[in-house]
Amino acid sequence: MKKHILVIPGDGIGPEVTTWGKAALEQIADAFGHEFSFDEALMGHASIEVNGNPLPDETLEKAKNSDAILFGAVGHAKYDNDPSLKVRPEQGLLKIRKELGLYANLRPILLFDELLNASSIKPSILKGTDILFFRELTGDVYFGEKTRSEDRNTASDLMIYHKYEVERIAHKAYQAAMQRSKRLCSVDKANVLESSRLWRETVQEIAKLYPEVETEHMFIDNAAMQLIKDPKRFDVVLTANLFGDILTDEASQIAGSMGMLASASVGDGTGFFEPIHGSAHDITGKNLANPLASILSAALMLEIGFGLKEEAKVIIDAVDQVLKEGFRTNDIADGSTNPYKVLGTQEMGKLVLKFISQ
Amino acid sequence: MKKHILVIPGDGIGPEVTTWGKAALEQIADAFGHEFSFDEALMGHASIEVNGNPLPDETLEKAKNSDAILFGAVGHAKYDNDPSLKVRPEQGLLKIRKELGLYANLRPILLFDELLNASSIKPSILKGTDILFFRELTGDVYFGEKTRSEDRNTASDLMIYHKYEVERIAHKAYQAAMQRSKRLCSVDKANVLESSRLWRETVQEIAKLYPEVETEHMFIDNAAMQLIKDPKRFDVVLTANLFGDILTDEASQIAGSMGMLASASVGDGTGFFEPIHGSAHDITGKNLANPLASILSAALMLEIGFGLKEEAKVIIDAVDQVLKEGFRTNDIADGSTNPYKVLGTQEMGKLVLKFISQ
Ligand SMILES: CC(C)[C@H](C(=O)O)[C@@H](O)C(=O)O
Ligand SMILES: CC(C)[C@H](C(=O)O)[C@@H](O)C(=O)O
Repeated sequence: MKKHILVIPGDGIGPEVTTWGKAALEQIADAFGHEFSFDEALMGHASIEVNGNPLPDETLEKAKNSDAILFGAVGHAKYDNDPSLKVRPEQGLLKIRKELGLYANLRPILLFDELLNASSIKPSILKGTDILFFRELTGDVYFGEKTRSEDRNTASDLMIYHKYEVERIAHKAYQAAMQRSKRLCSVDKANVLESSRLWRETVQEIAKLYPEVETEHMFIDNAAMQLIKDPKRFDVVLTANLFGDILTDEASQIAGSMGMLASASVGDGTGFFEPIHGSAHDITGKNLANPLASILSAALMLEIGFGLKEEAKVIIDAVDQVLKEGFRTNDIADGSTNPYKVLGTQEMGKLVLKFISQ
Repeated sequence: MKKHILVIPGDGIGPEVTTWGKAALEQIADAFGHEFSFDEALMGHASIEVNGNPLPDETLEKAKNSDAILFGAVGHAKYDNDPSLKVRPEQGLLKIRKELGLYANLRPILLFDELLNASSIKPSILKGTDILFFRELTGDVYFGEKTRSEDRNTASDLMIYHKYEVERIAHKAYQAAMQRSKRLCSVDKANVLESSRLWRETVQEIAKLYPEVETEHMFIDNAAMQLIKDPKRFDVVLTANLFGDILTDEASQIAGSMGMLASASVGDGTGFFEPIHGSAHDITGKNLANPLASILSAALMLEIGFGLKEEAKVIIDAVDQVLKEGFRTNDIADGSTNPYKVLGTQEMGKLVLKFISQ
């Protein structure tokens, strides 16, 4: 198979981890005889530094002309500390999501048995958890109109949904539920928000088209609680952009660490694959970041982007094997981890490559 | 001390649990020679059934003329299943918050040592956690304009903040931080939302007035994760209405159960005291609800509403004692609980009263 892949390392630990996601793809291409070509582009703070724009046209052009995108992270402390800055790294990420029509963000909560103890949640509560989140990604309060009054004392963001936006992601989530255990939980705040009431009505309608799937509706506050109280009660979770942002970060504790979770954003065109973790400026450049989320993003690209299930499984198995042999990065090491087996970003990356090639 | 207290039991398990919060107040009045008089009023579904209005003028009038309000919960499955219903129980709660100017919702995460094992989170992670949430309660997307297009296919809610709204709750949170460990974490989504940028700018300004307090700003997605990863890193948490709704429900797992947490809403006038749990229609009328959150709401009323610290402590100590003797309601029983010590709502309520009077 011949594929052209755009790598957008972005900011903070983005470049350090994306190196290993890309290397995993190269290794797979070698092993299976695929031809993957790569290009690279700027986004976020890295791009603002060079050309004042978090998403230059050149990056967008390259993105549209590639078969898949491997992304790192965007964000920088400078902007977090100064809310008044007009040009911001995250605008690049939001714009590329919108421009590529990436309305469905899939976040599988993949729990490696070896990491049962790395979580703050009890292993007995976690064991057997397997959740697939569908987060809507191009609507909601992320993209509604923003205002700031002239005296700067009032600010607003419009939380808005159109029925078709709910329908298309609901279909994707129900289709996935049909392939899994036929349970779907839709999360909203319909007891307070009109946009959530539209969300719930629409999901109720789509649910009728998938009568085999058991649908549950849950309020976001309750869901945030249930997710740690009893994660096994969830299978496919369908939710809006903002609620999905919050729930999936929270759910990263199920997998032991944000450093383990990958996501796939799909929709109208080129698919976009990235770790769910952020730019983590506090550990940038220290060889401390966990490269596994980027490596697992590569696996998602193979499976969801290119339909290469076997290849994806080789990567996941390699990660599993590394963990089984007791190797950990700092974020997933627990008290019982042999200190000699706690690896840096590079050492972990290399080890996974070794297992992929075996 | 002479006080007039309005009891609003509301819906679902509201009446069953509020009985015990009220009884605790009566017991305290007896023991300490206070004169507490009580009245009762309707709200939510219970009120809609009688007069078609989730918050009748009579209830509001009584509320304004009382020294404090003990509230249960509102909500009913009927409305959750039919998002198109125009008159809804929650409107009563939102309206009374607004009308009474209850802009600051204090939610202490009080962790009883005896319940360390009742949580899904590891005891080693929880031990020593003591968080006080300040949730803004009369602004945000809860109260911004709601629209629905004529074809019903587009719906919106305006997420909006005015600077003075952020300032007044920030002051309250910083004042509390000064009395505690002088650490405050403000939670927002300033990397995406304009209203969050106003929030962050304003908190940065107020922070300068409290130079002894160490301020941290955190994004909501990260906060939802950190809260279970390392709850001890938080002390005072300051956040907006919607984010506070989500975070505090999630945080209930720290205390072992939603059934343990009370909240105090204060602002311009009469204080409002309630469990953070909802109406829980699934267990209504089954003698299964945990009355401790309502009893602890009574303690918050005594402490925050009336400045009666000693009296509040008597209630908290009684709850502690009951737990120490091994008694549990269903929601906080763990595998090791002696089955004979798992009590119903009424038995638990009576037992706490007995310990209060000792
Ligand atoms: C960086 C930020 C804009 C982004 C989001 O909120 O969507 C991130 O948190 C994510 O989840 O991908
Ligand atoms: C019932 C509902 C409107 C309410 C809220 O969202 O504020 C509840 O969840 C709470 O936290 O008090």
